Amino acid sequence: MTFEAVAVRAREAAHELALATRATKDAALHAMAGALVAATDDVLAANAGDVAAAREAGTSESLVDRLRLDAGRVAAMADGLREVAALPDPVGEVVRGSTLANGLELRQVRVPFGVVGIIYEARPNVTADAAGICLKSGNAVLLRGSSSARRSNEAVVGVLRDAAAGAGLPADVVQLVPGEGHESAKALMRARGLVDVLIPRGGAGLIRSVVEESTVPVIETGVGNCHVYVDRDADLDMALAIVLNAKTDRPSVCNAAESLLVHAAVADAFVPRVVRALQEAGVTVHGDATFAAQDGVLPATEDDHRTEYLSLDLSASVVPDLAAAVRHIRTYSSGHTEAIVTGSLDAARRFTAAVDSAAVVVNASTRFTDGGEFGFGAEIGISTQKLHARGPMGLPEMTSTKYVVTGDGHVR
Amino acid sequence: MTFEAVAVRAREAAHELALATRATKDAALHAMAGALVAATDDVLAANAGDVAAAREAGTSESLVDRLRLDAGRVAAMADGLREVAALPDPVGEVVRGSTLANGLELRQVRVPFGVVGIIYEARPNVTADAAGICLKSGNAVLLRGSSSARRSNEAVVGVLRDAAAGAGLPADVVQLVPGEGHESAKALMRARGLVDVLIPRGGAGLIRSVVEESTVPVIETGVGNCHVYVDRDADLDMALAIVLNAKTDRPSVCNAAESLLVHAAVADAFVPRVVRALQEAGVTVHGDATFAAQDGVLPATEDDHRTEYLSLDLSASVVPDLAAAVRHIRTYSSGHTEAIVTGSLDAARRFTAAVDSAAVVVNASTRFTDGGEFGFGAEIGISTQKLHARGPMGLPEMTSTKYVVTGDGHVR
Repeated sequence: MTFEAVAVRAREAAHELALATRATKDAALHAMAGALVAATDDVLAANAGDVAAAREAGTSESLVDRLRLDAGRVAAMADGLREVAALPDPVGEVVRGSTLANGLELRQVRVPFGVVGIIYEARPNVTADAAGICLKSGNAVLLRGSSSARRSNEAVVGVLRDAAAGAGLPADVVQLVPGEGHESAKALMRARGLVDVLIPRGGAGLIRSVVEESTVPVIETGVGNCHVYVDRDADLDMALAIVLNAKTDRPSVCNAAESLLVHAAVADAFVPRVVRALQEAGVTVHGDATFAAQDGVLPATEDDHRTEYLSLDLSASVVPDLAAAVRHIRTYSSGHTEAIVTGSLDAARRFTAAVDSAAVVVNASTRFTDGGEFGFGAEIGISTQKLHARGPMGLPEMTSTKYVVTGDGHVR
Repeated sequence: MTFEAVAVRAREAAHELALATRATKDAALHAMAGALVAATDDVLAANAGDVAAAREAGTSESLVDRLRLDAGRVAAMADGLREVAALPDPVGEVVRGSTLANGLELRQVRVPFGVVGIIYEARPNVTADAAGICLKSGNAVLLRGSSSARRSNEAVVGVLRDAAAGAGLPADVVQLVPGEGHESAKALMRARGLVDVLIPRGGAGLIRSVVEESTVPVIETGVGNCHVYVDRDADLDMALAIVLNAKTDRPSVCNAAESLLVHAAVADAFVPRVVRALQEAGVTVHGDATFAAQDGVLPATEDDHRTEYLSLDLSASVVPDLAAAVRHIRTYSSGHTEAIVTGSLDAARRFTAAVDSAAVVVNASTRFTDGGEFGFGAEIGISTQKLHARGPMGLPEMTSTKYVVTGDGHVR
């Protein structure tokens, strides 16, 4: 099937899905979950084919691990679908409403986008996650996964489509984009008018290329060069715990800290202590002159300030004051999450007002910027753009709105 | 000055403007209004230069009229700025807030986009309107008007900048994009990272070219191929009044009706009547076979169904039922505004659920889709896209949000 044919089928399915009740959508999500568990053997057999091919192609073990499914991971995909079923339906929510002076009744109501495209990398569990979130928010989805996960994605999507159809929804609410490689991604990116929104999930390179090539509106997600700033009025024990947690709890994710800034007034007391603790936790520190005076600290380059390491590395600098910390962040941050540790209300107010990132955190780890932590229940990604949605995106962020205006013959 | 230098100055000014209080912004808007009125003579002299050059270049009288300012139009620009000052400040509004189970305090707060680019056509009054709306919503603005209005825009922007500086804001909160022609527009469209959002205001050609060329996120505005559907259960007197109003009240604007659909069951009673009334109002009807059987009706082509005439022309078709009306609208509409005239609650519910446009209107004219009519007070345009804002865009639609998260040493 051509991409256009697939996209037209998605549009038709979206028209029907937009009118489906919550009860129908939740029943479909439960049917999908049950069907995935029942099909565990088939899914794992398909996945074994992907894993073998990846090994043969010399793929690194860490990538192979991302690709690999087991019964537990399949069960987790099913649980994820059931959790989405338990969340409120955003579609139909009245966001705003009033009766105008002339008696016209105005309501702004949440509606699905229509057709959503998702471009993502190796993890096949994203296939079920994204399909579940799109279905619940009333959107037909076109999934373009990694070709290394093709067999796994085909198996999962086949199960989900059959279950959707069994629950009374069009199977075409979930489809894989046909073809492989950059051409299939390009078809999605150029499908303005056929696809309403495109969401890339993956590394910085993938996201940049989608943002630059797409004529379909894009929601940029997930690149996080997150900073922790330790203010002169910080509780240094608290600061140490937050820096360690933000850097080492899970270094490969976007809300991990990549840069540390320390107010000059507490540098003598804090720098040796934090460097030792970080090194004991296995972190390599890339520091400015003050930090580099400590044993084992590498000198930081301009590149270090810009880098989202996603590893046990951290760039670190001493700044003369809060204003300099803000300037550093404005220069190097990707606008994901920045934290300040301070006991000063004035410093907290100034930092949260002046730092313009999706999340600004006071006296807590950057790791809290997450749909699950925020109580959104399911998350399609963390938007680092300013248009439409910013920060963790739950179900309401997967909708648009329309105005419904009711009169009794009103003319101007 | 190069475009980059101008954009960097806008960014610096935006940082300062984002922290300005409502009192400061409102004082600046009042100062701008007063300064514009005081500078009426200078603005009109500059405008006379534009008008003379346009005449010399053989510009049509209707375009020259759009370009022309007089004391009344300058006073109206000033009044517009004062009206924006009277509106609530969207910046700082807490959109959502909660305390998480672990005690973290979460607030989602409205913040400015940062730097907004506006690309627009001949009317110099847009210069003051856009500057006022951007300033109140905390955004520095880069204005790229028509080169035919260059002298007028320079005069107006000069006055606004001086007034902003006099009121304690950076003059660079309002700037014209340097240079002329497509190159200056292109600089704006390629300024990803320097400009946060781009809003084209103008005809369909301008908007399409910006949407296709821009790597900066765009908010698409204002193309309206609006439909009125007269259902079998319509009050035909009401339907006649609504069709006439929607088509003839102001045919050159985006919320005017361009297409009429009539249920077959009322075609005999309604078609001759509506054609006669439209023709008496000077409207040329481009109809399907049923309509074309009436005197003076031209046969409609496929193109007629797609065209936003913006003139006293209307395409008209008979449809077998409501579902066919919905299909026709899905095929040809630009997603701006569609109206149904019906006495049936079931028909109203089905139409408003199935038609996916920025506004869906029951028993009222399409002309009500307007920021002023909706009570928003000021409008930067009417979004016909699904991302971020849809329908009339007031001040809140000119903002993003950020999450502010406050803890007392929380780690994961």
